[in-house]
Amino acid sequence: MTAADPLRHLERHYAMIPLTRAMGLRVARFDGAQLVLAAPLAANINDKGCAFGGSLASLMTLAGWGWIELATHARDLAADIYVKDSRIRYLAPVWQDFEAVARPAREESAGEFLATLAGAGKARLSMACDIPLADGTTAATLEAEFVALTRR
Amino acid sequence: MTAADPLRHLERHYAMIPLTRAMGLRVARFDGAQLVLAAPLAANINDKGCAFGGSLASLMTLAGWGWIELATHARDLAADIYVKDSRIRYLAPVWQDFEAVARPAREESAGEFLATLAGAGKARLSMACDIPLADGTTAATLEAEFVALTRR
Repeated sequence: MTAADPLRHLERHYAMIPLTRAMGLRVARFDGAQLVLAAPLAANINDKGCAFGGSLASLMTLAGWGWIELATHARDLAADIYVKDSRIRYLAPVWQDFEAVARPAREESAGEFLATLAGAGKARLSMACDIPLADGTTAATLEAEFVALTRR
Repeated sequence: MTAADPLRHLERHYAMIPLTRAMGLRVARFDGAQLVLAAPLAANINDKGCAFGGSLASLMTLAGWGWIELATHARDLAADIYVKDSRIRYLAPVWQDFEAVARPAREESAGEFLATLAGAGKARLSMACDIPLADGTTAATLEAEFVALTRR
């Protein structure tokens, strides 16, 4: 399997959600630590001409979800992944195409999450996502708890 | 002005956001205390066949925003309204068309919010939104803080 295959697997998942297609969501890259999704401003604009808050929140949530999907897929674990709880802070408006970056929250161990999921069939993982801006500041942050359940 | 006019004003606002059109968002009703928005499952489905979490979050956020837009409009205050911070709990999957209901959070006074906005040009209001299910349970809740700034 080439490095690109898991990202294509992820893109197929996203493409099953009509709203991600309407958002123009694209899987930008995954470096093993962080998953980056991208979306154009035009499809996600609000009535003020900047990015719609719902699009920022959705892209961050989808990035957190996708990171876990990639991690479980890499371990040959077939799991359904759900977001349980999230906290979003909107810090600055977004006036251009944007990206959402996802990684496990600082205190989390992905290895422990995967071991628990493989052993118990259920595990929780908190993800930290954000929308970085070109000037080095952050437009929005999301902390979310996800639950994964292995499929029988 | 008839009772329907403010809701049409609100619908025009929502229609300026391409993603709300993709969601099939509809202003269902406003009884003076609660604003209700509706969306069909088909446009908001995820890869599991139930409603996409991003759509639930967006509809609740838009309902909270819309409640404040209606309240400021009714007081002839022209204001830009932004969501600052939100906390979302996903409690149960949604397998049918759904609604989001918005009202000020329990501890809030809308009258105080409007008086502060009129006097100081800026005010904050916390909103409580949810997605009710037909069986009387709740599929998701959102608590969000909004900021309104009067336009000069």
